[in-house]
Amino acid sequence: MAEPVITLLSDFGLKDPYVAEMKAVISAISPLTNIIDISHSIDKFDVRMGSFVLASAAPYFPKGTIHLAVVDPGVGTERRPLLVEAKSASYIGPDNGLLMLAAKKDGIKRAYVIRSRKFMLPKVSHTFHGRDIFAPAAAHLANGTPPSQFGPSIENYISPGFARPFLKSGKLHAEVLHVDDFGNIITNVTVQDLKKVGLRPKKMVSIKLKNRMLSMPFCETFGEAPLKAELAQIGSHGFLEIVVNQGSASKKFNARAGNHLIVSLEDSR
Amino acid sequence: MAEPVITLLSDFGLKDPYVAEMKAVISAISPLTNIIDISHSIDKFDVRMGSFVLASAAPYFPKGTIHLAVVDPGVGTERRPLLVEAKSASYIGPDNGLLMLAAKKDGIKRAYVIRSRKFMLPKVSHTFHGRDIFAPAAAHLANGTPPSQFGPSIENYISPGFARPFLKSGKLHAEVLHVDDFGNIITNVTVQDLKKVGLRPKKMVSIKLKNRMLSMPFCETFGEAPLKAELAQIGSHGFLEIVVNQGSASKKFNARAGNHLIVSLEDSR
Amino acid sequence: MAEPVITLLSDFGLKDPYVAEMKAVISAISPLTNIIDISHSIDKFDVRMGSFVLASAAPYFPKGTIHLAVVDPGVGTERRPLLVEAKSASYIGPDNGLLMLAAKKDGIKRAYVIRSRKFMLPKVSHTFHGRDIFAPAAAHLANGTPPSQFGPSIENYISPGFARPFLKSGKLHAEVLHVDDFGNIITNVTVQDLKKVGLRPKKMVSIKLKNRMLSMPFCETFGEAPLKAELAQIGSHGFLEIVVNQGSASKKFNARAGNHLIVSLEDSR
Repeated sequence: MAEPVITLLSDFGLKDPYVAEMKAVISAISPLTNIIDISHSIDKFDVRMGSFVLASAAPYFPKGTIHLAVVDPGVGTERRPLLVEAKSASYIGPDNGLLMLAAKKDGIKRAYVIRSRKFMLPKVSHTFHGRDIFAPAAAHLANGTPPSQFGPSIENYISPGFARPFLKSGKLHAEVLHVDDFGNIITNVTVQDLKKVGLRPKKMVSIKLKNRMLSMPFCETFGEAPLKAELAQIGSHGFLEIVVNQGSASKKFNARAGNHLIVSLEDSR
Repeated sequence: MAEPVITLLSDFGLKDPYVAEMKAVISAISPLTNIIDISHSIDKFDVRMGSFVLASAAPYFPKGTIHLAVVDPGVGTERRPLLVEAKSASYIGPDNGLLMLAAKKDGIKRAYVIRSRKFMLPKVSHTFHGRDIFAPAAAHLANGTPPSQFGPSIENYISPGFARPFLKSGKLHAEVLHVDDFGNIITNVTVQDLKKVGLRPKKMVSIKLKNRMLSMPFCETFGEAPLKAELAQIGSHGFLEIVVNQGSASKKFNARAGNHLIVSLEDSR
Repeated sequence: MAEPVITLLSDFGLKDPYVAEMKAVISAISPLTNIIDISHSIDKFDVRMGSFVLASAAPYFPKGTIHLAVVDPGVGTERRPLLVEAKSASYIGPDNGLLMLAAKKDGIKRAYVIRSRKFMLPKVSHTFHGRDIFAPAAAHLANGTPPSQFGPSIENYISPGFARPFLKSGKLHAEVLHVDDFGNIITNVTVQDLKKVGLRPKKMVSIKLKNRMLSMPFCETFGEAPLKAELAQIGSHGFLEIVVNQGSASKKFNARAGNHLIVSLEDSR
């Protein structure tokens, strides 16, 4: 059997030695493990963005994958290092909510505080638990160490709520989850939510975003709208996205994660 | 024997989960395959740049490599997913010309439309064929599925011409192919082309670029020119490059891919 | 046994085919070798930054690792290609000092000039020794070729001195080694150096940087300082760092590698 995959996600960026040091530690402990980067370009300290990106990618990985994620503004303080065992994968990182969107979607079985020094580097710094605690934990887990040996099981891990759209007078009050590198504005509105307001392909949708009223077609593909025109569509993760055909919607509408929006079927009298 | 290498090239950037989702899909289907990134920083929707970078890197990979490339402004429209079998490698991606500079250099044996749902993810989105169609196809190909099983063979794939320099009154009319991260200006002029105008190392070359007449030495290495001075040389892919010794030629001359230039031996009366 | 790890470090950036070409060459010669990127975002031609990043990451890799590093402003000139055998790893790259901070820390056993054409690509360009000389050398070394077969042993390799802080009137005169992607200002001051001036956690430290006198607490973790406030701490590589809690110290103090600073215990009368 192939060793499990270990994925890495962080806000470390790619110029410094930090990501390589985590990989070095993993490959020293578990040489045959296959390491796959999810992203190291999470905005600095943006736990929310990290949790969205992790939760988007995680379901596509093979069963048994170990996800190591570090966006960790509280490193060195009281926040605990966490190992979460879920139905199809394990999640290792700081207890600040980062892991929980992915782990809950997956189905949490049990969470542990990583406490045993045996599975850490001999010297644990105050500032880089990714290398000194999380990477060795992931590698030892890949080698077959049972989760329960890392430390005590807990239930009071931090588990942020993620805003869901709500319906009010026939309109969806929603939120921007993420703006991707193309400038696509990804909202928290699902296909099921859209059915509640009667939105179907080929109809026009009204979107109030940053005090602007936008009107655009609800399409299945970019190509249905003219070049550089905006459209709404269901993106590859099942969420409503505001997109500009071969352009950047986030630049056009100056939008960012956390912005509120109101979505409704355009009046069709 | 080791599994074949799968390479990835895209315009997805590195902050989002998209690249990782392709790798996840591949490693779920073909766990022992070695995945190597060529680039994910192709300019958005720039098929031409993607095809240049792919064609530059591909020849160095071992025989049997599978190149998966996605710069895909037409995703979800009528454009077809393609699998090209060439002499030493296979190429998978959209039928928009992206694969063809590399595949033609390699020697095309046969091209197929990827149509069999058996080799796609169960749910195919309208916006992310890289993950839903191309990645599983590459992984199944790596596992040994014969190319012909993916769909019907075609011959009318899109195959853009790539501009070649032409000689007029003893001067080469040429084009900028690519500007690299160092700011080196890579042209489509080859060593053979230069022989036609009599250019040899140590001679001076005249280059008309963006209505400016430049005069610089034709060198074998950066080091022959003073620090921060411009020079022309044959780059590592066999093309004439305009370079600034430890500086950026593209900034100095404000050049970009697609710019025209006229190259001649400097008058030596 | 698993093949040794080959690490890569360069100033090539990630958009061009260059990094992939090195990986292609390695995987063609040594298909089972595990390649791990340290960084390809070293500032262009910045040998000093490259040597810092390499020396930071190298000690965490398993014994037998081969580090291939290319920041190479002198490519194609007289500068020699180098293979350094050290106690726990090998180092391959240009003879310009890039490898030496890491190799000296590791313990140099012997250095060789890479001269045998047998271990280079058939055609060696003047501009890309990373692909044509260093990558094949690393792959052949991974395959078991003894270092002495690559070329003659030398002792006159370039080995820059790295500035160490010095004590003058009870103050440490020191230097900024690196500014990381978080904006943390990493100095060349170690814990041992700090003892000489009597600095201990919880004390206040005076730092003169770019003609500004700064006063900040010397902390063990970010979290001890208020949000967006500056602090000094020992970073994950054992050096004194000037940090802003969840902010960028380099932006706040406009600092960069090479800046001088004077560190002292704040007067505690």
